[in-house]
Amino acid sequence: MLERTPRTVREMLNGLPDSWIHATEGPDTWSPYVIVGHLIHGERTDWIPRARIILDQAGDRRFEPFDRFAQFRESEGKSLGELLDEFATRRQDSLAVLSGWRLTDAHLALEGVHPAFGPVTLRQLLATWVVHDLGHIAQIARVMAKQYRDAIGPWRAYLPVVDR
Amino acid sequence: MLERTPRTVREMLNGLPDSWIHATEGPDTWSPYVIVGHLIHGERTDWIPRARIILDQAGDRRFEPFDRFAQFRESEGKSLGELLDEFATRRQDSLAVLSGWRLTDAHLALEGVHPAFGPVTLRQLLATWVVHDLGHIAQIARVMAKQYRDAIGPWRAYLPVVDR
Repeated sequence: MLERTPRTVREMLNGLPDSWIHATEGPDTWSPYVIVGHLIHGERTDWIPRARIILDQAGDRRFEPFDRFAQFRESEGKSLGELLDEFATRRQDSLAVLSGWRLTDAHLALEGVHPAFGPVTLRQLLATWVVHDLGHIAQIARVMAKQYRDAIGPWRAYLPVVDR
Repeated sequence: MLERTPRTVREMLNGLPDSWIHATEGPDTWSPYVIVGHLIHGERTDWIPRARIILDQAGDRRFEPFDRFAQFRESEGKSLGELLDEFATRRQDSLAVLSGWRLTDAHLALEGVHPAFGPVTLRQLLATWVVHDLGHIAQIARVMAKQYRDAIGPWRAYLPVVDR
């Protein structure tokens, strides 16, 4: 599942005009462009770094809080194409590290400390990575669908995605 | 947008094990496999056929009701890979017909009669085609995300896609 996400997001977005890429669901909501930046930030600071903290049971097992707004700074000046490439490369690197660990059930049961939730297992962290990807794929589709909320006329009654 | 959907859905699903492909959100909800069959049925009986009815202003402009359950019959015995191929081919054919029409604003303003809504324009039908695709992409992502609702432990609080 984790290998697929950069390709899925690329098929959905690469080459689209800015009116789609920068579309949002209203003030303080994210565009597809912002979401791709957020996925990159997760590769840099969340999934593998937190897994490392869990696996290094000798050290401090508290995670750094995740910065949900870093992409507004980090994506600056980059095209969507550059972000899609960066996400693909970083995801590939993350998965190379992950498979290199040859994780066992014992590893997956190890715990780290989440800043809000307290103890969480490596198994939960990896499942969350997958769900996080899928949630943002759904979000990208929803954000784009909403741009046609008025254009679809009466069909709005059959297409709840534009009102979710 | 319409060209992208078969590729997006292929990246999301092709080659996944049955546990993902046939996963649902509960009784009487659709799996990714069922959704792909539904998208094929739309190519066969909905979008282009309804556009033809609208463009043929001499004839009866009432649409046939769309069968939302046809895919349970029509997909029988087919692998997901076969369905993905069929969807890609049918979509390509649909778009060849569509671009062959060289639609003008005058065409887009023509009306057909929807069985539930009454008069709708060709412009609304084409926008609905796009939103329908995006809604089902979001649905596929959501259905798969829900399979890990328990696996993500306390992160469920941050991932509304598993409870939508």
